[in-house]
Amino acid sequence: MVEGPVTNGVVDAGAGALLRLMRDGRPRTRSELAAITGLARSTITQRVESLLGANFVVPVGEATSTGGRPPTQFAFNPAARVALSADIGATHARMAVTDLAGEILAEHRDDLDVALGPVPVLEWVVAESHELLARIGRTVKDLIGVGIGLPGPVEHSSGRPVNPPIMPGWDNFDVQAYLTEHLGVVALVDNDVNIMALGEHFTQWPAAEHMMFVKVATGIGSGLISHGRLHRGAQGAAGDMGHLQLPHGEDIVCRCGNTGCLEAIASGAAIAAKLTEQGLPAKSSQDVVALARGGSVEALHLVRQAGRDIGEVLAAAVSLFNPSIIVIGGSLSQAGEHLIAGVREVVYRRSLPLATQDLRIVQSRTGDRAGTIGAAVMVIDHALAPAQVETHIFS
Amino acid sequence: MVEGPVTNGVVDAGAGALLRLMRDGRPRTRSELAAITGLARSTITQRVESLLGANFVVPVGEATSTGGRPPTQFAFNPAARVALSADIGATHARMAVTDLAGEILAEHRDDLDVALGPVPVLEWVVAESHELLARIGRTVKDLIGVGIGLPGPVEHSSGRPVNPPIMPGWDNFDVQAYLTEHLGVVALVDNDVNIMALGEHFTQWPAAEHMMFVKVATGIGSGLISHGRLHRGAQGAAGDMGHLQLPHGEDIVCRCGNTGCLEAIASGAAIAAKLTEQGLPAKSSQDVVALARGGSVEALHLVRQAGRDIGEVLAAAVSLFNPSIIVIGGSLSQAGEHLIAGVREVVYRRSLPLATQDLRIVQSRTGDRAGTIGAAVMVIDHALAPAQVETHIFS
Repeated sequence: MVEGPVTNGVVDAGAGALLRLMRDGRPRTRSELAAITGLARSTITQRVESLLGANFVVPVGEATSTGGRPPTQFAFNPAARVALSADIGATHARMAVTDLAGEILAEHRDDLDVALGPVPVLEWVVAESHELLARIGRTVKDLIGVGIGLPGPVEHSSGRPVNPPIMPGWDNFDVQAYLTEHLGVVALVDNDVNIMALGEHFTQWPAAEHMMFVKVATGIGSGLISHGRLHRGAQGAAGDMGHLQLPHGEDIVCRCGNTGCLEAIASGAAIAAKLTEQGLPAKSSQDVVALARGGSVEALHLVRQAGRDIGEVLAAAVSLFNPSIIVIGGSLSQAGEHLIAGVREVVYRRSLPLATQDLRIVQSRTGDRAGTIGAAVMVIDHALAPAQVETHIFS
Repeated sequence: MVEGPVTNGVVDAGAGALLRLMRDGRPRTRSELAAITGLARSTITQRVESLLGANFVVPVGEATSTGGRPPTQFAFNPAARVALSADIGATHARMAVTDLAGEILAEHRDDLDVALGPVPVLEWVVAESHELLARIGRTVKDLIGVGIGLPGPVEHSSGRPVNPPIMPGWDNFDVQAYLTEHLGVVALVDNDVNIMALGEHFTQWPAAEHMMFVKVATGIGSGLISHGRLHRGAQGAAGDMGHLQLPHGEDIVCRCGNTGCLEAIASGAAIAAKLTEQGLPAKSSQDVVALARGGSVEALHLVRQAGRDIGEVLAAAVSLFNPSIIVIGGSLSQAGEHLIAGVREVVYRRSLPLATQDLRIVQSRTGDRAGTIGAAVMVIDHALAPAQVETHIFS
């Protein structure tokens, strides 16, 4: 009998290394796989059998041959399992179910107040998971795992929020254990900006080695990709830029208690407050976008200035991190070209010439799906391409 | 016959993966290696033979056995080859020859003006290489490669300096080709701070996943380690912090033409100038250190303030990058605890609590050998543990 290649929701090292190669979707024969990997033909046969048994690869068509029986080609089967993902925001939430290539098969968006606390929010996630799976005719048995993004600091390794400012009741709650218990699969938790960075990188810029994703919405944060891999930092706190200080903002008090924080000056919430002061009522980042799209000169002016302020902080980040691309996402990035124009204006002027010579600053292409795609990718990568620890190189 | 495991100065993937494991120095039997790696006994035997043929591993003693002929143990042989390294500063240079464990076997330090231009400086490096090798009774045939650090921006992939401000004549010079031509081995080039970061990480903090090394000398720069690997960024410009702007330095003009740059305010050169103004003649970072060690209150005061200024920039870097450790090196770090005390004072107050809760800020332990050790480690790692590209995981 064929042994299953999955242990604890993660593909075993041997079959996993082969699957990692095959995820590009190209059909290959056993001989081609042996040639590419340098593995013995017998090892390839054994691992392909194992992957076939789990349905992770399937036979597809036949290769042209010089004679005799044509050899079978095998390809990755993205339909073998599905991933569930949830992107929880401050006041609304999105969920999706994707195939193993990160393609969304079904999705759902709802108003949901994260301040309700972990149990009501996660109950919603679990109920919606069953609903989404039913909609595409699958069950929890088809799940490879569930990924979730939360709007606050998260210790990724333990799956627990750490003193999240806008999430009362969530501090240190074991989100990972709750989801695993109620859905019976591996659960991974991260902050919302990290999963957006993953989603944008995986689907739009997979070849970018060093990338920075900036979310500008009610708050401001970023996610860093180093050598193609999410750089979470020692406590999972990397990418925090909302509370870096702007030199000219010393009289503006932030909700964190400090003064001059970027978030207190250039976030969607800050712009909404300024517009309201100017007699243009706005409560949220979305209201600012609506005003800007409607052609409000005041809104456009403030959005562009926010871009410049964000650019001041990004200029320093560019010198330090030297990404090849900066992707600007989050709801405020939907306000048109003005936000990104302000960012570009300052970054290209203020960062080191060497660091900006090939730097691209672009708008998010995944938009408000970045988070759900990224949370799915996080859990798919965990299952199919576990972090290369030393033992995996022998597989 | 045994095939050699080295191609173009790099160990082949199969033997390399085994060697990477064995670099910890522990003796192991073939059975133990098979058990750890999951590779077939025949594959292990073949790879061990190949590594024995190249002298990279040697038989050591005998394992205790339950009976019969005791199985042979094999261990990494750091003496199999040697690495040459050069750390070129603005006005002096250090060279070393190390074994494959990065242990210095011979070294040399000399005054050398980098502004002489590439050919005179590299001629010195080549002559000194032969001299150092002769001193330990080895020849260029024993070389695994040569690593060199330069005091300016370097495109690591091509081995060429890019508009280096204090290195007239070096712009775009093919340092890599020159050294390979004259020494007949692989040559790798990087900036001085990156090699210091590598040297400190490899010898002192190998388990630190995310580290930041800060060099404070005539100039100020940093090197970043992400997931145990040097983060050079898209153009190799990552870690630049000398030209980030301090909020309170707007009237101070930097040699780069901008105002308020950290380097213009807190570098050894800036402090020396301030001391000279105050009637305490100082020309260099070393003079500042001498005054501070001699107990000059003015020098100690200025060094501590420089630490605070560096801390302001580092506070932002800590929020963005979230390292577990910051190592402070460079000549000014030899001035005693005052520099690091100033850094700690500001970083722990200004960075996000989550990012500083387990953060350590320590002085360099390798001191002025960080660069030569790091340049050697760069070339040894390149040869013995090439970057894990996709094919290596199958080896």
